[in-house]
Amino acid sequence: MATYKSPVQDYLFLLNDVFHIERHTDVPGYAELSPDLVEATLTEAAKLCDNVLAPLNRVGDSEGCTRHEDGSVTTPSGFKEAFDQFRDGGWNGLKFPEEYGGQGLPSVLAGVLTEFLSGSNLSFWMYSGLTQGAVAALLRHASDDLKRLYVPKMVACEWTGTMNLTEPHAGTDLGLLRTRATRQADGSFAITGTKIFISAGEHDLAENIVHLVLARIEGAPSGTHGISLFLVPKFIPAADGSLGSRNAASCGSIEHKMGIHGNSTCVMNFDGATGWLVGEENRGLNALFTMMNEARLGTGMHGIAIGEAAYQNAAAYAHERLQGRALAGRKTDKPADPIVVHGDVRRMLMTMRATTEGARALAVWTGIQVDLAARAADPAVREAAEDHLALLTPVIKAYSTDTGFASAVMAQQIFGGHGYIVENGMEQFVRDARINQIYEGANGVQAMDLVGRKLGLNGGKPMKAFVSEVEAWLHSRADKETLAVHVKALEAGLGDLTQAALWLAKHAGEDPEVLGACAYDFLNLFGLVVLGYMWGRMCEVAGEKLAGSMGQAGQASAHLSAKLAVGRFYAERMLPETAMLLARIKTGAGATMALSDEAF
Amino acid sequence: MATYKSPVQDYLFLLNDVFHIERHTDVPGYAELSPDLVEATLTEAAKLCDNVLAPLNRVGDSEGCTRHEDGSVTTPSGFKEAFDQFRDGGWNGLKFPEEYGGQGLPSVLAGVLTEFLSGSNLSFWMYSGLTQGAVAALLRHASDDLKRLYVPKMVACEWTGTMNLTEPHAGTDLGLLRTRATRQADGSFAITGTKIFISAGEHDLAENIVHLVLARIEGAPSGTHGISLFLVPKFIPAADGSLGSRNAASCGSIEHKMGIHGNSTCVMNFDGATGWLVGEENRGLNALFTMMNEARLGTGMHGIAIGEAAYQNAAAYAHERLQGRALAGRKTDKPADPIVVHGDVRRMLMTMRATTEGARALAVWTGIQVDLAARAADPAVREAAEDHLALLTPVIKAYSTDTGFASAVMAQQIFGGHGYIVENGMEQFVRDARINQIYEGANGVQAMDLVGRKLGLNGGKPMKAFVSEVEAWLHSRADKETLAVHVKALEAGLGDLTQAALWLAKHAGEDPEVLGACAYDFLNLFGLVVLGYMWGRMCEVAGEKLAGSMGQAGQASAHLSAKLAVGRFYAERMLPETAMLLARIKTGAGATMALSDEAF
Repeated sequence: MATYKSPVQDYLFLLNDVFHIERHTDVPGYAELSPDLVEATLTEAAKLCDNVLAPLNRVGDSEGCTRHEDGSVTTPSGFKEAFDQFRDGGWNGLKFPEEYGGQGLPSVLAGVLTEFLSGSNLSFWMYSGLTQGAVAALLRHASDDLKRLYVPKMVACEWTGTMNLTEPHAGTDLGLLRTRATRQADGSFAITGTKIFISAGEHDLAENIVHLVLARIEGAPSGTHGISLFLVPKFIPAADGSLGSRNAASCGSIEHKMGIHGNSTCVMNFDGATGWLVGEENRGLNALFTMMNEARLGTGMHGIAIGEAAYQNAAAYAHERLQGRALAGRKTDKPADPIVVHGDVRRMLMTMRATTEGARALAVWTGIQVDLAARAADPAVREAAEDHLALLTPVIKAYSTDTGFASAVMAQQIFGGHGYIVENGMEQFVRDARINQIYEGANGVQAMDLVGRKLGLNGGKPMKAFVSEVEAWLHSRADKETLAVHVKALEAGLGDLTQAALWLAKHAGEDPEVLGACAYDFLNLFGLVVLGYMWGRMCEVAGEKLAGSMGQAGQASAHLSAKLAVGRFYAERMLPETAMLLARIKTGAGATMALSDEAF
Repeated sequence: MATYKSPVQDYLFLLNDVFHIERHTDVPGYAELSPDLVEATLTEAAKLCDNVLAPLNRVGDSEGCTRHEDGSVTTPSGFKEAFDQFRDGGWNGLKFPEEYGGQGLPSVLAGVLTEFLSGSNLSFWMYSGLTQGAVAALLRHASDDLKRLYVPKMVACEWTGTMNLTEPHAGTDLGLLRTRATRQADGSFAITGTKIFISAGEHDLAENIVHLVLARIEGAPSGTHGISLFLVPKFIPAADGSLGSRNAASCGSIEHKMGIHGNSTCVMNFDGATGWLVGEENRGLNALFTMMNEARLGTGMHGIAIGEAAYQNAAAYAHERLQGRALAGRKTDKPADPIVVHGDVRRMLMTMRATTEGARALAVWTGIQVDLAARAADPAVREAAEDHLALLTPVIKAYSTDTGFASAVMAQQIFGGHGYIVENGMEQFVRDARINQIYEGANGVQAMDLVGRKLGLNGGKPMKAFVSEVEAWLHSRADKETLAVHVKALEAGLGDLTQAALWLAKHAGEDPEVLGACAYDFLNLFGLVVLGYMWGRMCEVAGEKLAGSMGQAGQASAHLSAKLAVGRFYAERMLPETAMLLARIKTGAGATMALSDEAF
């Protein structure tokens, strides 16, 4: 069976040594983040994830969720007890304001937990993960009354949340949605319609479920400008929070899915259910984007998390499985050498590490920007952080989930035939990782968001800021011998990226189709470059620490040395792909769009 | 639910127009292949595959196989009736000699059927597919007595076959295997041991099952030079073919797998089972390679087949699903445009077609070489064909299954969330396609076979012959305006390939690890180039036919025009990846091997 160990050490390196969270003490929440508190928190979270949630991952997959005739849903064995433990540990409230019962700690720390939780058990994590997204939307857009009544219960995870967007005929294009809201005399609305793919839509883990539902108020304009967001609780609470009558929101069925079986993905029926408006009328998408952007960063984290989990198991297996001999001569006296000696196995292990650890660094860097955008005193700092988030959210969502899936596939490949066998858990990583590329906006939609909206945002300011930052970093390292491999590769990669952006900007005017035809290549190019920047920064710090006079104890030193080796692999063998992507982009849309629609 | 339509038209184009099977009338079997017979055979096979087998594909996945307490195994509903139909149609004997009840038709035609059968229902096909591999091994290596008794029944598919190689601790490295064979007084052997991952190991589709089992005769040398091949029937037949006593070969359990649920993958226990030696003592691997090479080409075909099936469903869905608007302006009056208008959806559809159709051309080219190697009168022709097979079998196996899996993943992606739902059948393609990259020698093993054995085979003769052929083709098309895009890209790709081969040859002596570290990149480079050659040849023919004075009827003309468009896409956007792969190969093994074993 697959096992999992939360990557505490790597996060301590990123938080303390690479991104220096101690430099942000002026940002609310950061002053409390002493190195000791961070380490203690992560270590404690790791215990829960490694020992309680990870062993339930296979259970969740094999049992799945059960819908009963009355519409109630039972989660897999052990989920309820584990959820009690998660809730009682207060883990859900880490980043939320203290006035709502949270701990007011930075988002970046909660992001670390997201990796541990989703790496150990993605299906389990989603029950609380959706809740966190719903809380974020309510905090930003709901009335004080709604916030007072709902948010504390959700922060405590006594009530969980959901996002109700998709309808059978409308996913990405929300303008097509049909669920309707009828105004009632008391100011509430009656919500009627069917939503599909509702994660955690119904379950037995919490006493109440708070659905955030997109619907169209009768008489509202068609398209996306006529959509509003509503809060629809499973049980309607009294003003004191005690549960009242059952609302007309119910689970019609549970979807049969490729993976994440432990999460109940529901078809939700709203039959005149009572709901309350969140935010302004017809501005539902606006309110939703708060939740979506948060969810997209979280989904990127799921990709990293499963990449890490799959890697750990593949690396362990590569030490255990004996087959063949090392090409440079036998390495052991056993009947055969462990497969970790083989170059092609190492190619896969190194690729997994290069993408997983690179994307993790990007997630931490970005997690800090989430805090700066929400909490920094200086408006210029907030704006710069917002720009970073706008530009990099689609990259993180798509690139980290594509590489996470690829890592799961490679890890399964290292197991050979045993990777195809259910009991070994490797094929579950592949099936579970696959959803991350699809939900919260399919990765192709992220690519279109990047080239169609984010590149040109505010006259291209976010993109210019990103390029300037990397250029400045490169400039001041131009003569640094130890970083030469990174500087060379990153310089070339950044050049390719800027050329590609200019090319797209120039040609999109003549032929708008170039954006669609080249979007995915551009996103991959961007992902390669930003991970190259992360590897440059990590290797600089690792090299300095290793060279430092204090020296490093065994394990820490091994961690730093490995960073240098993996970073070199990334710079030499992966980052140079940018040239190919630029060349492909420069072929434009012609070849992709030439065939008539009917010919498909 | 997913549907399937056998690609008859594409095969007629390849067999008749591109590879001119009518030019091989001097090869036994080809004279019978009139265009009418080919078309009638493929059309008839397509009926069985499209109408009978494809509808059982989901059934097989959801029901799986059931092992009963007595060790017997029931296949999914409908499989037995369909198998009767398949057997009664004589489909299994197409390529086998008439003296054993076959039809003596060329292998290349049987290869076409392999695509139709595995595209419509991979799990179903494997029951007879394994039989074909076993027949091939028996025809080549078994004694006349064994052939007379077993082969006609297996050609008729009244009895099916299996391959018993893998043991729990020994997969790729067969030298480690432990199953033992004890010589008995009557010349037979008693076989004892456990084999795993035995496809079609036990089932209810045929009255007898003929296991080919690798085992070590007591006293034989250790390692791969002490392994022999045995024929171990489930029921021991009398000389007249009537079934006698039950042999001590039984299914201990059925594996729980990620996919191909409709095929019973068994743990097989041999408890002193009676077996007969096939071929020479201690030369079992030699006998096995006949079966393996055939199986590897077949597995490549599975990759193509699932790629095609997944593409067909994704293309249909892309016409049906409405989301958003074309970037160049709305294309329909519907509430939204079908997603086939979007550049990123087309990128995926075109990529699927470019790899699937390119790999199919390679499969047909190679299928003809199988016939030439086995049947041509001229020894030089046979030798050239053997060289082709030696060199290209690992490329076909690995590249076609990697691209087949990638196609299944892209097709699922086009379905968005609906692709993750079991009932739509797209996620089954992903799960089923995944095994092709693993079995019959994992794709990394194929890459090592290519660089470690095949590149330098006979002083590099096969590789030189391949390069010369492509060079000659390029040379005589250098001034052909209509092929310019192909010539340019293929020339560059071929240059990258030869440089990479030279680089590897030069550096492997100094550092053997470069072979392992660079094997996969080299295999991909080779795959890209050989598909580029196929696309060049297909586009040349398509262009000539389109321009021809006879003109072409609507559907045929659309097929030819699409070839030109997809070929251009391949040449402009895919083939140029070779430069990146060459650059990566030239970085050698350093970055891949730098990290110590313990650091993983």
